[in-house]
Amino acid sequence: MFSGKVTRPTALLDENRVKSNIKRMFDKAQKAGVIFRPHFKTHQSIAVGEWFRELDVSKITTSSLLMAKYFADAGWNDITVAFPVNVCEINLINELAAKIKLNLLVESVDSVNYLKEKVTSNIGIYIKADIGYHRAGVDPHNFQLIDSIIEAIKSAAKLSFDGFIGHAGHAYHAITDDNLNKIHTDSLACLESLESHYRKVYPNMILSTGDTPTCSRKDNFAPANELRPGNFVFYDLEQHSINSCPEEQVAIAVLCPVVSVHPERNEIIIYGGGVHFSKERLGTDGWPQCYGMLINYSESGFGKIEHAIYLKSLSQEHGIVHAPSELINKFKVGDLLAFVPIHSCMTADCLRSYITFDGKKLDHFSYDSFA
Amino acid sequence: MFSGKVTRPTALLDENRVKSNIKRMFDKAQKAGVIFRPHFKTHQSIAVGEWFRELDVSKITTSSLLMAKYFADAGWNDITVAFPVNVCEINLINELAAKIKLNLLVESVDSVNYLKEKVTSNIGIYIKADIGYHRAGVDPHNFQLIDSIIEAIKSAAKLSFDGFIGHAGHAYHAITDDNLNKIHTDSLACLESLESHYRKVYPNMILSTGDTPTCSRKDNFAPANELRPGNFVFYDLEQHSINSCPEEQVAIAVLCPVVSVHPERNEIIIYGGGVHFSKERLGTDGWPQCYGMLINYSESGFGKIEHAIYLKSLSQEHGIVHAPSELINKFKVGDLLAFVPIHSCMTADCLRSYITFDGKKLDHFSYDSFA
Repeated sequence: MFSGKVTRPTALLDENRVKSNIKRMFDKAQKAGVIFRPHFKTHQSIAVGEWFRELDVSKITTSSLLMAKYFADAGWNDITVAFPVNVCEINLINELAAKIKLNLLVESVDSVNYLKEKVTSNIGIYIKADIGYHRAGVDPHNFQLIDSIIEAIKSAAKLSFDGFIGHAGHAYHAITDDNLNKIHTDSLACLESLESHYRKVYPNMILSTGDTPTCSRKDNFAPANELRPGNFVFYDLEQHSINSCPEEQVAIAVLCPVVSVHPERNEIIIYGGGVHFSKERLGTDGWPQCYGMLINYSESGFGKIEHAIYLKSLSQEHGIVHAPSELINKFKVGDLLAFVPIHSCMTADCLRSYITFDGKKLDHFSYDSFA
Repeated sequence: MFSGKVTRPTALLDENRVKSNIKRMFDKAQKAGVIFRPHFKTHQSIAVGEWFRELDVSKITTSSLLMAKYFADAGWNDITVAFPVNVCEINLINELAAKIKLNLLVESVDSVNYLKEKVTSNIGIYIKADIGYHRAGVDPHNFQLIDSIIEAIKSAAKLSFDGFIGHAGHAYHAITDDNLNKIHTDSLACLESLESHYRKVYPNMILSTGDTPTCSRKDNFAPANELRPGNFVFYDLEQHSINSCPEEQVAIAVLCPVVSVHPERNEIIIYGGGVHFSKERLGTDGWPQCYGMLINYSESGFGKIEHAIYLKSLSQEHGIVHAPSELINKFKVGDLLAFVPIHSCMTADCLRSYITFDGKKLDHFSYDSFA
């Protein structure tokens, strides 16, 4: 069905599944009574963004200023860049802030003081709080440090203190309900510390959270009043393997041409390597340590994931697929096989465009060091 | 020195080092009396390609047909695509073969028969031989299979059998001289099997090999009469760690802005993540399992690699740098730090452009599913 249209590794989206994933998360946020500010770093697509806009989503999250510009140019005008502010991009910050409601993250007085001196339009400032992932952010119990950052923000005419933002990235390693519950409880306790200390003084402050595993599996997020998951839009093999979604919600795969079949070593070589999938490898217990897994597809969309056929290794352009003897003979040179990637954000970033089952080509943001 | 010019993750090349690396490998091939057909999949740059052309290099290797087109459009007219032929791209194959001397790899009769039916211009065909890496290729001792492939090639008017091509990719795991010597001896023995069996009948056949570790550390390649290393142009931390090059030959790093400094946990956060470095991780014994290592630089180029400061983890856009207490205080928000990537081919592919120390911006091929 993609013969002639798809000739090399290509990201394939199941539009129905993507739209269902969006609707499900949108409804959950509505029901929880929180702001829905989806993270667009997974799809990075203006076209996919429009599927959110159909539900009247108006606030979004990006992971870089350049990505914010991409969406601002497409009409999005309330964007949080969920990354500790990169002061080297001050010109782009000022360009964006002149045009849209731009929200930035800080985690030090130094960054605030830099902005205070250089910004030329109003910017909303969130303090990045470490709610247990320990990648970035301030200790949510260190009120002395937080107070000093807030004071610095308040001393800058163009900056407003809008709230706190956290990310429980360690939820990506929680498989059992017990593990996830503990992470969820502990990370909300961090936000609770901020809530009880600062809500009275800042009644409108936002407490933002929202990793995909937690947002997918939990329903209550208080005291958080904003959710910003991203990966749920497509999910991927990692998310499925840690129970964030059933396989029927996995909405992305990479179509790859078969270039060689070696039944004698149970291997198929595909055109599709590290530059297409990224080098993310699945590390979930009980799953093969692989770079992708075969998914069946028909004209109507994706079918079952084929656990016995997976990408066992990746070079720059080659993928080596393991396939058991009883299945390998149904594949031949020139076939287009679909593989669910391990981490859809990274794979979409490599491929930088999409095709849908009805043949539409969709855009993806393209990073440029010198833009 | 890059202040204002570089504001986000950017591949930085030391042009002097790159040119020395090119000259050194060119001289080695000359001395060994073999054809030098460098692999352009590492740099993927027309500008860097010109530095080869200054030495009268005229034959090159690419890892995809689209990359071959990129260089053909820049005037290169003898290109081997060192990848089992992807028959889905038959239109591009015919477009290229009408214009340049195009050489393709096959490893099955099926692929040859497909080409036989569809190609419209002359194409040189190499049989991919498995010389020990076991990623792709035919067993070099399986003369029955090889003969059947050669017969199929000879039966096609537009195809010519030009030789055999091998790649000792397992040399990337050889650190000691003993290990590398064994791999080199064994892989040349595979080529010797083909040499002694086929040279009399095909006196002009090419026996092509050329991974960077072997080409960097060995001087004799007989019976191979063509070398096609690629990575040596930049090298990287992996190549340095396995003794392919001294640190003075490492010619690439990624400039990354500092966004946060956390002395209390010996961590610096940089803007520079998996989408910029790729997720390649160093696995060499005795080295930190890292995603990059700090390298000093001045206006004249790169200095020493700083072993104590390395990228301990990568998210999509964040890099977490480990830095010991005695060094961390010299870094501040807004600094541009340079990190040697683990695998330069993958990192260059992520960043898709370069800057040199004198501020020149250089191109990089950009993959497009739908080109």
